[in-house]
Amino acid sequence: MTTETTTAWTKPHILSLETFAAPEYETLLETADSFREVLSRRTKKVPALQGQVVANLFFEPSTRTRSSFELAAKRLSADTLNFSGSSSSLAKGETIFDTAKTYMAMGANIMVIRHRQAGVPHTIAAEMDRLQTDVRILNAGDGQHEHPSQALLDLFTLYQWLSSSSPHQFLAGKKVALVGDILHSRVARSNLYSLTAMGATVHLAAPPTLLPKAFQGLLPESYQDQLICHWEIEPALAEADFIMTLRLQKERMSDHLLPSLREYHQRFGITRDRARLAKDHVKILHPGPVNRGVEISSDLMDDPECSLISQQVASGVAVRMALLYLIGTSS
Amino acid sequence: MTTETTTAWTKPHILSLETFAAPEYETLLETADSFREVLSRRTKKVPALQGQVVANLFFEPSTRTRSSFELAAKRLSADTLNFSGSSSSLAKGETIFDTAKTYMAMGANIMVIRHRQAGVPHTIAAEMDRLQTDVRILNAGDGQHEHPSQALLDLFTLYQWLSSSSPHQFLAGKKVALVGDILHSRVARSNLYSLTAMGATVHLAAPPTLLPKAFQGLLPESYQDQLICHWEIEPALAEADFIMTLRLQKERMSDHLLPSLREYHQRFGITRDRARLAKDHVKILHPGPVNRGVEISSDLMDDPECSLISQQVASGVAVRMALLYLIGTSS
Amino acid sequence: MTTETTTAWTKPHILSLETFAAPEYETLLETADSFREVLSRRTKKVPALQGQVVANLFFEPSTRTRSSFELAAKRLSADTLNFSGSSSSLAKGETIFDTAKTYMAMGANIMVIRHRQAGVPHTIAAEMDRLQTDVRILNAGDGQHEHPSQALLDLFTLYQWLSSSSPHQFLAGKKVALVGDILHSRVARSNLYSLTAMGATVHLAAPPTLLPKAFQGLLPESYQDQLICHWEIEPALAEADFIMTLRLQKERMSDHLLPSLREYHQRFGITRDRARLAKDHVKILHPGPVNRGVEISSDLMDDPECSLISQQVASGVAVRMALLYLIGTSS
Repeated sequence: MTTETTTAWTKPHILSLETFAAPEYETLLETADSFREVLSRRTKKVPALQGQVVANLFFEPSTRTRSSFELAAKRLSADTLNFSGSSSSLAKGETIFDTAKTYMAMGANIMVIRHRQAGVPHTIAAEMDRLQTDVRILNAGDGQHEHPSQALLDLFTLYQWLSSSSPHQFLAGKKVALVGDILHSRVARSNLYSLTAMGATVHLAAPPTLLPKAFQGLLPESYQDQLICHWEIEPALAEADFIMTLRLQKERMSDHLLPSLREYHQRFGITRDRARLAKDHVKILHPGPVNRGVEISSDLMDDPECSLISQQVASGVAVRMALLYLIGTSS
Repeated sequence: MTTETTTAWTKPHILSLETFAAPEYETLLETADSFREVLSRRTKKVPALQGQVVANLFFEPSTRTRSSFELAAKRLSADTLNFSGSSSSLAKGETIFDTAKTYMAMGANIMVIRHRQAGVPHTIAAEMDRLQTDVRILNAGDGQHEHPSQALLDLFTLYQWLSSSSPHQFLAGKKVALVGDILHSRVARSNLYSLTAMGATVHLAAPPTLLPKAFQGLLPESYQDQLICHWEIEPALAEADFIMTLRLQKERMSDHLLPSLREYHQRFGITRDRARLAKDHVKILHPGPVNRGVEISSDLMDDPECSLISQQVASGVAVRMALLYLIGTSS
Repeated sequence: MTTETTTAWTKPHILSLETFAAPEYETLLETADSFREVLSRRTKKVPALQGQVVANLFFEPSTRTRSSFELAAKRLSADTLNFSGSSSSLAKGETIFDTAKTYMAMGANIMVIRHRQAGVPHTIAAEMDRLQTDVRILNAGDGQHEHPSQALLDLFTLYQWLSSSSPHQFLAGKKVALVGDILHSRVARSNLYSLTAMGATVHLAAPPTLLPKAFQGLLPESYQDQLICHWEIEPALAEADFIMTLRLQKERMSDHLLPSLREYHQRFGITRDRARLAKDHVKILHPGPVNRGVEISSDLMDDPECSLISQQVASGVAVRMALLYLIGTSS
């Protein structure tokens, strides 16, 4: 399966979407599509990674993302090993590198790595390459840097929803509102790359503390005209095709970047009234877990006419199968 | 295998034994019997749930019950995902519903749910039905309400022990003493339904603080004459065929419902002397883990002539295989 | 596979190397060798333990050793169950015996046990035998007593490195320096048995607080001339073929057995200068996790010309597959 598309895959690691090019997004979407089909069968397993070991190294704990990767790996018939920071030997004075090398030496073929600190997956990948191993690294979220698999599952959710006949520039002419804690969000950062690469215009909305003026300069210049910043939510939502909300970390309050969750909801929360500013049948996304009544009003979140949140979770397994498959079978 | 018996299975979820009828108990016992046979083979696996996902959502942690369900699922060739409250995103403000919906969207076919609060598995099951999903819910213990799989494994242990030729009313004429913290025990509540439904007469024994007068009124009237309450242990044990002891939670002491573990043992602990009040060859059960020297004297617990505790644990895997099989293959 | 060698295997449990004889070491090394070959294939699984259950009972938590056993079991196609002390019902007043009996009753075929207290795996094994079960026990580290699988993976690492044509007395004429906290190390204790049994001369080096005079008397007299104690590191390293370092537990400082990590490193840490005292191309081992800059200087640890640490981890999976295979298939 998916043999034609994957012959082109050249990235041994999935670290960041900053360096993803259009053909890579397209291959990924097509591969995920074929796994989506597998997942609709009664027997949802394929032998693609049989005998391979996927180690989930979650130095920052996460039940949801870890379960999604674990299930994706199992459905590819890989064996899985779970490591979580709390039960780790890090307390014993071992470095992160040493932990990664230990799992490498045990025979892990792919390491899925989440870490509180930006850049950790990159440095581990560089070390694996320097040691001339075949170990593949997949960034499952590093600090405030990137969270590629989340942005790719968001993209795949939009792709599925639009039932596009081809992934090529499938978001051209679409307006996506991206609302929330842009500054600190690794999800936002990865999404900016993927959404603009697929042709969307992205309107960002957040209070100035969470969306500083300097932010726009971070994207490649070629994408700058696809990216518009707002400090009010209304212009971002106006005529939007999709609203992507970001999770608000409660520590933003103690950091004095926001006065209160209530005030945030009043100014930037997505409610039924605000959703009416967007196009009819606008769809709302959220990477989860949602703070109900903060980023989104509770009724809107539970309305299957509006929310694509469950579809995002389902897409997550297909997209992660595709990622593991692409890096696990490329040479 | 077991194809004849299971055509009749109509319960999509296992939430409570209150609504179980005799044919359901009988189907369950027969199905568990056939899995008991599988477990005696060298290769103890069957492909019944291949490709299906069993998610163990233990909002209240439990190694023993979770391991038993996990092993049952693996022996049916299902893939398993484990979630435990402590490592959860609940701390992040997600509701229990949202967690369940996340695992549903990932593709879980069966969710085994334990929660400190009574009714959580029911409300999740109702939500799954409302959303018209095929997800099955299995209550692995909810607050002080019910613990169906424990009562069913107890029942299966008695069934095996008696080598009855048919499960139909196989406990008719048998006296079961149920001793301990009846009031707060979800195990007791489930057992009262199953034991009386199979024809047993159940004698309950506990101090008045743990067995209030009002308790007897909770059972359906048709069973009332099979249920006798005692505030002393001796009449409950007299001529009993089986003694089922309940685990004493240490918080009962801080709640001032009991003076001390020692006094509890003196008045209600099962010792060799007390066991002599019962029928010759009386068998003792306990859901585990046992507080040695509190509910049962240590020597009695270790005496294979008296104790069925190991058989209960073994029955647990067979009964849970049967439950997962019945709800996982019914349509 | 490996059918010829294993016909001779008679040990149902792996509890200690004190009672290992030369033929057992040789069978183990040959069996591990054949699994090493399996691990070099694309599909690294064999069906040897299909349908069997390996329960990892880690009363003392360890990510690294537990992952190694888990992977070894999965590659033999066994099902695995993980239990860790922290999430246990031990807090509920259950004894260790009761936990082991619970996993036995669930159907565990092999229990891999780690416990803070010396002797726990032995007493559980004795109980399993007394109960006439077929359950096999594998000691994964008990207090300061033994850690057989670690010493055997060390031995296998040396065997692989030397590419000996036969395991028989393959360390004859070799000098091994064993440096560090000999007194408290279960790894050291197991290594002394295995290294001397294979013919090596072992030079121990540690400060007197960690290597008391009485220590030498613990080994069987027949090995005494293969064992030389030093309170300075230089004579131990001189002309050594291998340097095995031990992990320094930080609690040794609070126990007032060592002044500081820095002083320990100055007197007993392996640096490039010190390594020059040994033979050219000396190889350094460490059971991990390493306190970088304490037991070994960081540059030396990362130098693939000097360090066998990664090979040790890789050997761990092959050796544990061999151990599980030998005890899981012997009758």
